[in-house]
Amino acid sequence: MIFSRFFKSKPKRVFLDYASTTPISNKVRRAMDPYFQKYFFNPGALYKEAVEVRKVLDDSRAKVSKVLNIQPAEVFFTGSGTESNNIAIQGVYNEALKKGISKPHVITSCFEHPAVLEVCKHIERNGGEVTYLNPDTKGIISPENIQEVLKENTILISIMYVNNEIGTIQPIKDISRIVKKWKEKTKGIYPYVHTDASQAPNYISVHVQALGVDLMTLDGSKIYGPKGVGVLVVKKRTAISAITFGGGQEQGLRPATENIAGIVGFTVALVDAVSLRDKEYERIYELSQFFLNEIKNKIPQAELNGHREKRIPNNINICIKKLDAEFAVLKLDALGVACAHVTSCKSGEENSSYVIESLGKKECASSSLRFTLGRHVNKKDIEYVVSALKKVLASSVK
Amino acid sequence: MIFSRFFKSKPKRVFLDYASTTPISNKVRRAMDPYFQKYFFNPGALYKEAVEVRKVLDDSRAKVSKVLNIQPAEVFFTGSGTESNNIAIQGVYNEALKKGISKPHVITSCFEHPAVLEVCKHIERNGGEVTYLNPDTKGIISPENIQEVLKENTILISIMYVNNEIGTIQPIKDISRIVKKWKEKTKGIYPYVHTDASQAPNYISVHVQALGVDLMTLDGSKIYGPKGVGVLVVKKRTAISAITFGGGQEQGLRPATENIAGIVGFTVALVDAVSLRDKEYERIYELSQFFLNEIKNKIPQAELNGHREKRIPNNINICIKKLDAEFAVLKLDALGVACAHVTSCKSGEENSSYVIESLGKKECASSSLRFTLGRHVNKKDIEYVVSALKKVLASSVK
Repeated sequence: MIFSRFFKSKPKRVFLDYASTTPISNKVRRAMDPYFQKYFFNPGALYKEAVEVRKVLDDSRAKVSKVLNIQPAEVFFTGSGTESNNIAIQGVYNEALKKGISKPHVITSCFEHPAVLEVCKHIERNGGEVTYLNPDTKGIISPENIQEVLKENTILISIMYVNNEIGTIQPIKDISRIVKKWKEKTKGIYPYVHTDASQAPNYISVHVQALGVDLMTLDGSKIYGPKGVGVLVVKKRTAISAITFGGGQEQGLRPATENIAGIVGFTVALVDAVSLRDKEYERIYELSQFFLNEIKNKIPQAELNGHREKRIPNNINICIKKLDAEFAVLKLDALGVACAHVTSCKSGEENSSYVIESLGKKECASSSLRFTLGRHVNKKDIEYVVSALKKVLASSVK
Repeated sequence: MIFSRFFKSKPKRVFLDYASTTPISNKVRRAMDPYFQKYFFNPGALYKEAVEVRKVLDDSRAKVSKVLNIQPAEVFFTGSGTESNNIAIQGVYNEALKKGISKPHVITSCFEHPAVLEVCKHIERNGGEVTYLNPDTKGIISPENIQEVLKENTILISIMYVNNEIGTIQPIKDISRIVKKWKEKTKGIYPYVHTDASQAPNYISVHVQALGVDLMTLDGSKIYGPKGVGVLVVKKRTAISAITFGGGQEQGLRPATENIAGIVGFTVALVDAVSLRDKEYERIYELSQFFLNEIKNKIPQAELNGHREKRIPNNINICIKKLDAEFAVLKLDALGVACAHVTSCKSGEENSSYVIESLGKKECASSSLRFTLGRHVNKKDIEYVVSALKKVLASSVK
């Protein structure tokens, strides 16, 4: 891979920020290639090349739907995971208002990605009601807590499938089950369940039926696919309205000339992520156990953030008390290690992690480091990172 | 070019639908290349590769701003022209509501692209007021008509720079001048002027200062750049709010992990379009004069839609009375010519052109054909198209 050569250059570089974004795989790149110049046509046109491109679009939708075990018409291509979350939450909220629900209520967690949290804040500013649930100290949202805050005007529950900072897996199935029971009682269409599954496909099942959700977000840039493409799953009969308007593409829910190269790339990336999943899970799990053992032996003061088992295996988020994490990230960078201390979407603004703080570990909020592994990481890289980290600790503890 | 080879295959194919979408140029493609695998990093991260990518982002913004003659901070990268239009219109409208304007008024034209028209309809459904101006019979909006409908509560005028179906150039400078005078009188910040300039950069100046607009939309997919990338120009001190929410990218106006490959591609495409413009204008103008002459001689019943001079040169939209245009497009396709009868964004839904109808030419609304020329069209292609059209006419007139 081109980018591997980049990392193989001297001095050594180890990339451990795969949760932030992934490179495009060779397979994805090859698949996208013909759609930049050869098959560049607008699928809305009538001539045969455009019709061919329309078929490619339909075919991509069918492939994505198959992997997710839903109908093709339930797959909506968007411009990003952020946009998918916005359409899901704003779209359901706006439609609820149209249906005459006076103060629609949304349940979410306080450690969601900003692309959910900030949408919820927008809804509050516009007269909606939002309940932000706290995870437990291990970083898991309790389905029982959701049960407790369900109300007559609850229209949507949006809980991420995998937390992007600490990698903990949320009990989406149990949440859906509780909601289903509630709806059997109330006989209403609400609430819907939405999950931002952007961090999930590389490691755990994204089977929509099994998860029982009505809406699901996916993001190409986290699964070795292209940036600028996401998917929003919207199950049939979900009451949702568009938030942008135009030429009617994607059943009117996300209008714009279709980004065919991106859509094809996303599709290959998702299909690939799912087919490589079991093998890659195992490989990364072993690496992460090795990583954790090394840390335990060599950096005993480090403490894992988030549940030890209920997490995707590529995420190692550790708290080292009194560490200035931002400084450590820069020091590690100087030693050749690329990692993170807070989600990169907010790094310009904040040095403290609201996710870690939500675990009740305030002392860790600006003293935690996130290492996220991926397809190109091997054991030697881990050894290198642990030794670099040891060096940094010798100089960085506050 | 790869796609030229495609067209050079037998049987002959001539693509005359460049207004619908363009292929990516070789230059754009080469520029995008390194950002898929080598420099795939999230510009929000702290390590050096991410910082490098952040520089590329800043550099792209600077280049775009230079071409448009504005400040870098006035350039916002979006996911499409459609999205740019939505942010411009909804964003200004929502902010006006926040400022306490009770029934904000928007002026637009009735022959805008759906990505403006449908946003305006949305605003009407939500309690806003919209005036849809008719163009004259030549497809030009009169600045005086705008003057007449300006009101105290007018917050925005959104008039396209170039009509996508008939190619007519709207007097944006004059509109801005009228608005400026109005604002000098009222001393208010409103109305703003927005123009959808998606069809413009290949042929006419997109100098924002000279046009005098506050907001401008551009679309990568119409300028030999990538699909899935647009730009919204927002001049400083424009009161606008975001319509989607997330990690704060693009000054919070368009959050999502930045699509660096796409942004780089857009930038090269725009810079290239502007630098090739004069030469390409001349070449295409000559071709279009030849095309029009051929039509005049061989298909005398055809009549040009829209102003003969005030149009971009690549657009030849002709009405042939009693022609079934949709059928003709399919017949032309069978003979190797790719063209359009209505904007491809709506072709699934409508067979009649609301643009042509707005010229007061109802009898032409479903009897008009749009041929749009581009970089790879030559004189032989035009000869071929005219002869194909003659054949089709022999069998297609109602």
